[in-house]
Amino acid sequence: MGHLPQMRSRLLALALVSTAAFTAAPAAFADEGMWLLNDLPVDMMRTSVGAAPDATMVQKLQRGALRLANGCSASFVSPDGLVMTNHHCVRSCLEDLSVGAKDYLSKPFFAKTTKDEVPCTKFELNQLQQIDDVSPQVLNAIKGRQGAAFADALKAVKSQIESACSAGNPNVRCDVVTLFDGAVFHLYKQRRFQDVRLVMAPEFSMAIFGGDPDNFNFPRTGFDVGFLRVYEGNAPLRTADALRFAATPARDGDPVYVVGHPGGTERDRTVAQLSFQRDVALPWTLIRLAELRGRLDEWMQADKKRAVRGKARLRSVENGLKALRGRHQTLAAPGFMDGRKAAEDVLRRSAGPVSKAAFVDVEEANRVAAEIWADYRLLEAGEAFMGDLFAHARHLVRARAELNKADTQRLPEYTSARLPALRQELGNNATIVLDDELALFAWSLHRLRNLKGLDDANVRMLLGTLSPETVAKTLLSKTPLKDPKVRLKALDGDVATWKKLDEDPLMRFAAVIDGPARAARARWENEVEAKETAAGEVLATLRRTERQKQGNSAKRVYPDATFSLRLSYGRVAGTRTAPAMTTVGDLFARAADEEPFKLAPTWLKARTKLTATAGMNISTTNDIIGGNSGSPMLNPQGEVVGLVFDGNLPSLGGRYVYDPEFNRAVAVHADAILSGLQYVYGAERLVTEIQSTP
Amino acid sequence: MGHLPQMRSRLLALALVSTAAFTAAPAAFADEGMWLLNDLPVDMMRTSVGAAPDATMVQKLQRGALRLANGCSASFVSPDGLVMTNHHCVRSCLEDLSVGAKDYLSKPFFAKTTKDEVPCTKFELNQLQQIDDVSPQVLNAIKGRQGAAFADALKAVKSQIESACSAGNPNVRCDVVTLFDGAVFHLYKQRRFQDVRLVMAPEFSMAIFGGDPDNFNFPRTGFDVGFLRVYEGNAPLRTADALRFAATPARDGDPVYVVGHPGGTERDRTVAQLSFQRDVALPWTLIRLAELRGRLDEWMQADKKRAVRGKARLRSVENGLKALRGRHQTLAAPGFMDGRKAAEDVLRRSAGPVSKAAFVDVEEANRVAAEIWADYRLLEAGEAFMGDLFAHARHLVRARAELNKADTQRLPEYTSARLPALRQELGNNATIVLDDELALFAWSLHRLRNLKGLDDANVRMLLGTLSPETVAKTLLSKTPLKDPKVRLKALDGDVATWKKLDEDPLMRFAAVIDGPARAARARWENEVEAKETAAGEVLATLRRTERQKQGNSAKRVYPDATFSLRLSYGRVAGTRTAPAMTTVGDLFARAADEEPFKLAPTWLKARTKLTATAGMNISTTNDIIGGNSGSPMLNPQGEVVGLVFDGNLPSLGGRYVYDPEFNRAVAVHADAILSGLQYVYGAERLVTEIQSTP
Repeated sequence: MGHLPQMRSRLLALALVSTAAFTAAPAAFADEGMWLLNDLPVDMMRTSVGAAPDATMVQKLQRGALRLANGCSASFVSPDGLVMTNHHCVRSCLEDLSVGAKDYLSKPFFAKTTKDEVPCTKFELNQLQQIDDVSPQVLNAIKGRQGAAFADALKAVKSQIESACSAGNPNVRCDVVTLFDGAVFHLYKQRRFQDVRLVMAPEFSMAIFGGDPDNFNFPRTGFDVGFLRVYEGNAPLRTADALRFAATPARDGDPVYVVGHPGGTERDRTVAQLSFQRDVALPWTLIRLAELRGRLDEWMQADKKRAVRGKARLRSVENGLKALRGRHQTLAAPGFMDGRKAAEDVLRRSAGPVSKAAFVDVEEANRVAAEIWADYRLLEAGEAFMGDLFAHARHLVRARAELNKADTQRLPEYTSARLPALRQELGNNATIVLDDELALFAWSLHRLRNLKGLDDANVRMLLGTLSPETVAKTLLSKTPLKDPKVRLKALDGDVATWKKLDEDPLMRFAAVIDGPARAARARWENEVEAKETAAGEVLATLRRTERQKQGNSAKRVYPDATFSLRLSYGRVAGTRTAPAMTTVGDLFARAADEEPFKLAPTWLKARTKLTATAGMNISTTNDIIGGNSGSPMLNPQGEVVGLVFDGNLPSLGGRYVYDPEFNRAVAVHADAILSGLQYVYGAERLVTEIQSTP
Repeated sequence: MGHLPQMRSRLLALALVSTAAFTAAPAAFADEGMWLLNDLPVDMMRTSVGAAPDATMVQKLQRGALRLANGCSASFVSPDGLVMTNHHCVRSCLEDLSVGAKDYLSKPFFAKTTKDEVPCTKFELNQLQQIDDVSPQVLNAIKGRQGAAFADALKAVKSQIESACSAGNPNVRCDVVTLFDGAVFHLYKQRRFQDVRLVMAPEFSMAIFGGDPDNFNFPRTGFDVGFLRVYEGNAPLRTADALRFAATPARDGDPVYVVGHPGGTERDRTVAQLSFQRDVALPWTLIRLAELRGRLDEWMQADKKRAVRGKARLRSVENGLKALRGRHQTLAAPGFMDGRKAAEDVLRRSAGPVSKAAFVDVEEANRVAAEIWADYRLLEAGEAFMGDLFAHARHLVRARAELNKADTQRLPEYTSARLPALRQELGNNATIVLDDELALFAWSLHRLRNLKGLDDANVRMLLGTLSPETVAKTLLSKTPLKDPKVRLKALDGDVATWKKLDEDPLMRFAAVIDGPARAARARWENEVEAKETAAGEVLATLRRTERQKQGNSAKRVYPDATFSLRLSYGRVAGTRTAPAMTTVGDLFARAADEEPFKLAPTWLKARTKLTATAGMNISTTNDIIGGNSGSPMLNPQGEVVGLVFDGNLPSLGGRYVYDPEFNRAVAVHADAILSGLQYVYGAERLVTEIQSTP
């Protein structure tokens, strides 16, 4: 919020700019863009940062970069399969491992030897092997179709392509990636690693040093670092794909690349789509997260064990709240939407009948989206039924029905290509704590009843006038689904298990609400998503044509982010109000006696061994977004100079706009990583290993 | 939310309608309007509901209606000063009285004799005596002025008029009321009653029967009733102004009036003003209330005493959340703002240079509003410093400075006309519970730091890296401001008291932040409010002129609601999805074993004595809004047939639009009130008293 005045003027400026530049990717700004690795803007990179990767380097970056299936990025940093990512990307594993007296959030985790490395049973890492353009096949399958027929055909052709690609090999993961709003489809063939083990993680309090007040701010002094290792055949994976750490640290002005998996941008959306976000989706979620934050924080204060178990979730809720608030403020800034509207009006004037119809379709899709949003979120997206137990119940209810269908007829998450992930999820043996489940489930049922009212048919069916707490206890207290063995047996169709589950109140509850939930999903997919995808393809083509007419054909464009691998280029740089870097000394200067500014004892003890002037965090102009967490930050030689973990406040609006004057990526400096490992956490073996990378 | 589909189509319809009808009060709909008692649309009323009050009746209604200074409405219902209002309007008094073992929220309160009636020390009732048009005097004083000069002149002339009117008599309260966006100013001279005592209140659970799920819904079966009594010279006030209860109950289709104090509508606002509400103010407050709701609910669950103390506040937070959500959904509905924009475009085309400039001024004012909103709300509106103790500290800090100034130079709440209210507030001897104060104050400091960041100058000054909990404890634990006697002595300038207060950490804190808070207020008043008021006057005139050009001069208009006394007319009516009334039998049918559908023992016991077919709640087409709570609902003879306590979901958008098909006022049926008093609460003496009204 300290940056709001600047944000405002930035947005006004952008609104004016975008009136003229309504192209898919307004390439007006240097350093903008999340680029496909098979389509890098080499000339632009040379002009802007004086460097660009050649084919060998691209291959190296593609193989060195990894995707965590939980939505994060990562990279190989040693020949023995050592993986670098953020603390917040391995946090769920730390939580799962914190059972009994173990508390890997309060204390650091470090495996002294490889034997001490512990499996993160929910984790999966993917390494991109190959990209193929499957646009012709996909577009041909959906051509001329609309609504449910369009959605079904798209689902079927994707599933067909993905299954053919993975060919039943559980070590291969194939995803058809949607690009340019559905104008282009690429097939990403990835190597899948499911034996992923925890190697090192600092104290939670050091990873989130400065807490919510410092989150998305710069100056920043966080140590949001985590290390995993990939195993194959119960031994560390030997790999030639590791990225080496740079010998020379990055300095202010240096060019840097970020290679990772940005989750989602909407820079190419229509006014109807942006208005839906501003007016419906974001307020809905902000209100939900705000209540959850308050509830969780107080719930934790009532019990010390809860405080330990809840703090990672609380952080994630607070982080989401701040991030979405930033997004909302960008869309809601005076002048922003007017600028977009003016730009769209220009585009509409050039539109032929098909494009005009596409604009209308998008409007209609977003009107429907506003109408069905509550049902979709509550019933299908699971907001009304929070917690792991219900999620397992729904999976089993659905798997039972879906696995009897042909692959092309199934809900995507039950196709044979996705079965390994489903099996891993249901088989996860992390302890399920009933106290947590009851609190979340009861609250989400309360929310359902408050939002829909007592006279809603589903509310009547599920709750009536019984209290959500009573219902939650009845459903959750004795369910056999707490046991991962039971869940896996059910997945495998074991008759005795299903006999038991047919009597389970939670399974019955999940079965009863499955029809309404599927109905909400069908409307969402057919009347919103399918319509938007079909129209998106038309509008993407219109934008390209108009850009070419304007003589901008030389300008390269990047597709909106969709969790596919991207490269962004930029430089180490501060802003008018913040420096380009912080040092280890700044961390100690910011420290205080109380959370969230309290230093862990490990850091206090190591103080004299650390170099005060060494880099702590770096601010760069790279164009990144959520999903880039854990991305390596590299110099033009492809060597690690940092680890991306955040953006600044203006970067939150990066979902919609990028401005090199304000948007900043924030990374842990490579020096802080290495000296932290060595002097603070006694992890010399990792430093040696990292430095052995050729 | 059950009504959303209808709401949507309603809003689309209205958006179309308002394209044509951009007048101040689109009188397109029957029963729309919150009318001034000195300017009733008698002809329209006759056409619409077949009745209209004559001068004698108007006088009777004006004298029978009362305003509670806390923002509610009420009425005299017996010759001995008995006052009828809602339970939620007397709730703060019930809370103040619930000390030690006394719990008037869980149990009903009924004073068996007048001697048992207990003072509500914070309460003040106002009875309107006279209305004078002071527009010439006010408009003359502000003519040609802008910004701070405008704001100062307006403040000064209002204070001058009010002081002259009350002439130092503490029993007279005078308010200059702003109407038609500042085109008209009326002086309301009111009789002030400060000895107000509690007579009867049902269980909280019966007042809010159905809880949050049923709130703003119909069918509804609440008993939101409360009785007070006005005392004068320590004896019940004898009055000839009481309204009598009707002998015949209201039936479906019957015409009804509501006389009360609607707090605020914005039916006449520009697109810039409505966009500011949709994009900035409402999301901000919704997020805040959502977090507070979650926090409060969990905080209460950790401790039984907290649960007792907190439940009224929780209800009020939940109520606010649902109400503001309804407002936001109306503004955010697809098509709504487009309709308003189209209408405004028509108006702008007719605008001369002065009006055009006024539109620009409103836009600029709202841009500034968005920029300074956070500081204004946090520092000046007190969101960063919640709780009674800080409020007292701020009052004393400010009173000390303001009372040395001339009346016209003071902040309005410290002028001599307002001193009785200030004295009452500071002298309130309700117990201040430290546990509550600490929780609220610490949370609000957390929120300040999270929103503004650690590097904000005020955050640095007030908190730094100290935890908000530590700061709250330091400031609140030992402050002498807990004692009302100390506060009153300080108000009276007692030197010894001030010597003590000068050492008090809380007073110092309040003093230190007073400058930044006043600065935020000054910007808000000068750059937002003053600009909007000045422009509002111009635009109101433009709208009137344009309406006359269109030959609609015969159509009567009502000003936006501003807590001044209004009459709205309508009929008892259901909607497509809900009946016009519920019965006592419906209440018992909706009851269950668990909150919020659990019947109090008093009602269970009385069941056989009650008539199942008797009216419980009534739904009517009256155009009401928050502030109308506690308003009497009257038949055309001016006799009480109900007690307004709520609106339905669509009525929440009534702040911006009214549609007789959807908007409904909700009242407790007079039969339920009388039979509840007699058979459930054994309050026969009140029934006798009520029925003695001539």
